[in-house]
Amino acid sequence: MFYLSVNSSCIRVLRSTLKTTLKSFSTSQPTLSTASSTNPNFVKIVEVGPRDGLQNEPKPIPPPIKAELINRLAIAGMRNIEAGSFVSPKWMAGTAEVLALIDSFPKTGYSVLVPNQKGLHDLLEILSTSTSPNSHAKPPPPVTEVAIFTSATDGFSLANTNVSVSGSLERLAPVARRALDAGLKVRGYVSVVVTCPFSGRVDPRRVRDVSRELVQMGCYEVSLGDTTGAGTPASILGMLEEVAKEVDIGILAGHFHDTNGTATANIMTALDFGLRTFDASVGGLGGCPYSPGATGNVATEDVVYALTGDRLFGDIGEPYGKPAKAVQSRWDVGPVDLVRLAEIGAWISGVLGRETTSRAGKALLARRKREEDRKRKEGAKL
Amino acid sequence: MFYLSVNSSCIRVLRSTLKTTLKSFSTSQPTLSTASSTNPNFVKIVEVGPRDGLQNEPKPIPPPIKAELINRLAIAGMRNIEAGSFVSPKWMAGTAEVLALIDSFPKTGYSVLVPNQKGLHDLLEILSTSTSPNSHAKPPPPVTEVAIFTSATDGFSLANTNVSVSGSLERLAPVARRALDAGLKVRGYVSVVVTCPFSGRVDPRRVRDVSRELVQMGCYEVSLGDTTGAGTPASILGMLEEVAKEVDIGILAGHFHDTNGTATANIMTALDFGLRTFDASVGGLGGCPYSPGATGNVATEDVVYALTGDRLFGDIGEPYGKPAKAVQSRWDVGPVDLVRLAEIGAWISGVLGRETTSRAGKALLARRKREEDRKRKEGAKL
Repeated sequence: MFYLSVNSSCIRVLRSTLKTTLKSFSTSQPTLSTASSTNPNFVKIVEVGPRDGLQNEPKPIPPPIKAELINRLAIAGMRNIEAGSFVSPKWMAGTAEVLALIDSFPKTGYSVLVPNQKGLHDLLEILSTSTSPNSHAKPPPPVTEVAIFTSATDGFSLANTNVSVSGSLERLAPVARRALDAGLKVRGYVSVVVTCPFSGRVDPRRVRDVSRELVQMGCYEVSLGDTTGAGTPASILGMLEEVAKEVDIGILAGHFHDTNGTATANIMTALDFGLRTFDASVGGLGGCPYSPGATGNVATEDVVYALTGDRLFGDIGEPYGKPAKAVQSRWDVGPVDLVRLAEIGAWISGVLGRETTSRAGKALLARRKREEDRKRKEGAKL
Repeated sequence: MFYLSVNSSCIRVLRSTLKTTLKSFSTSQPTLSTASSTNPNFVKIVEVGPRDGLQNEPKPIPPPIKAELINRLAIAGMRNIEAGSFVSPKWMAGTAEVLALIDSFPKTGYSVLVPNQKGLHDLLEILSTSTSPNSHAKPPPPVTEVAIFTSATDGFSLANTNVSVSGSLERLAPVARRALDAGLKVRGYVSVVVTCPFSGRVDPRRVRDVSRELVQMGCYEVSLGDTTGAGTPASILGMLEEVAKEVDIGILAGHFHDTNGTATANIMTALDFGLRTFDASVGGLGGCPYSPGATGNVATEDVVYALTGDRLFGDIGEPYGKPAKAVQSRWDVGPVDLVRLAEIGAWISGVLGRETTSRAGKALLARRKREEDRKRKEGAKL
């Protein structure tokens, strides 16, 4: 008996737990807390799925699909979305089309990755063309931010942009300056902050110096990328302690991959250290499709669940002594709708012909399906 | 360019990082640290895959396969293995056969789950028969410990053992007494310590009281099971704070499921709180096969990686200023061989006709395969 009989009861599982919560979560979550950057417990999640998540797909994703992904993410409450990149003519054409197709949600900010002056020039062109008085086109795409990128090792930088780290910083300085002049915010990425595929373990002092230089060229935020996903709470903490010697913690963002299943643990470590911004990718989009077993960015659903999942389960159920208050996480991720996120993760993964890699997303949808099946069965009995 | 070109370089990825480490890790890891229960950074991992992980499989696993799993885990350095259960005549026969087939590794302790007096009686019979002077059989199976189980809600307890929590504790007290009299150690399990499928959110005071009662009946260790995997760092911490009011932290073990991707984060939280024992299941075995999307116990590989994975990556690679020392986790899991664990997780998952759910296991084996492919290609060129 015992655990074995849990099997047969799995079908009718999670009755009281989820009956109401899955339904009410979509609407109740936004009112649970007020997103505010002055709230010390507010955690900003930057959704990078549409850019970082999809860029490694072997087949190009049609711009209308990308635009739908971005619009659905905004509706689900994501307030910061990286919408695309201007890194090659092929990508630029696609991104321009995506930008023309997305709707403007006033509370959501959109950013675009630019590698160099050419990319920025073309982006600015698009942004200004649409605003020209002679244009009868739609209003300009709601892009308020560009992202620039470098890495913490020459090995990675040379392999990917054919230039050393210092060479790449020299290239980026005028890009940042021009973007700032055009009224755009600039976000900086540092890749391979823990290990590098080409040079092994990375010196945290290099991460510190590169981050400082990005801040000095005007980046309002520096996203520290554990590109290989090798980081553990110990190595992430060691790296952050070094970077924080020269860069204000409030400027830093964590961009952790879940290759080894450590991403949410690393995020909790970084939160304890004082970071309040994390990149994530709906459905866990990303990684390297040519590498079996390599997963991508941490799934947005998993991050939201780890930070606020307690709220799904309502009050304490079975009576025991005096009524007890449920423990809830202090973290506030704003008006993010976890059920919608799970649906988006499953949808876009389906478009790509695979399953979402988000554990929280899969679990939530599986629970909902069981609940629906149970109701259908009960209905059939009546 | 940029990230895109990572794709093409994925094939030759992780050259210096893994060339030597994957090879040397098997042999070098055991000497890195000395496992000792007096070391405050020593973390005891209880491998529950062979029992908790396999008990929900729809098809019975042949005893020789289970015995091979247990033997391989011992060779991989696991020092605490739950080998099987005596919960029903069917299971008992299988477990008796498994116990007769496993080899004795003097440094590894084996435990068996017993639900009641009948199960304990039959186990003791097996243990004593083999020691009888007239027996020419093998020495007795190396079982030194039994595990007993109850839960934190009447809903779960009634559904699984047809008795309330207090009724189950009454049943277990004489079982524990007799096991102790027979010279066996007794471990207690508490299921559904965060949420219950039948009664929703669980009162942490109930977990506290049940844990205390298990200690009072002689359990040297109480394993707190987040059976639904709903726990987050916040709810796990809240529950532990309540339990620790009446039970010494050193007695508590965390048994966390990874349903929502929070298990390693929850383990780090529990470590910070002072726990030093965690249950895990190689390959992430377990969960409910009838529930799509429901994953089981946290994978042993993922726990070992989160605690000690830094050691895989050696010294800091690319020169940058003065030579720097790599940051390493302070946790010591004993002589556990992560590469062997990953192989075992992939093997047993293959036997069950599926993929391992361990992210660290998958990533490690994928890296090794890439490295082997690269070497083969280089060899072909010569």
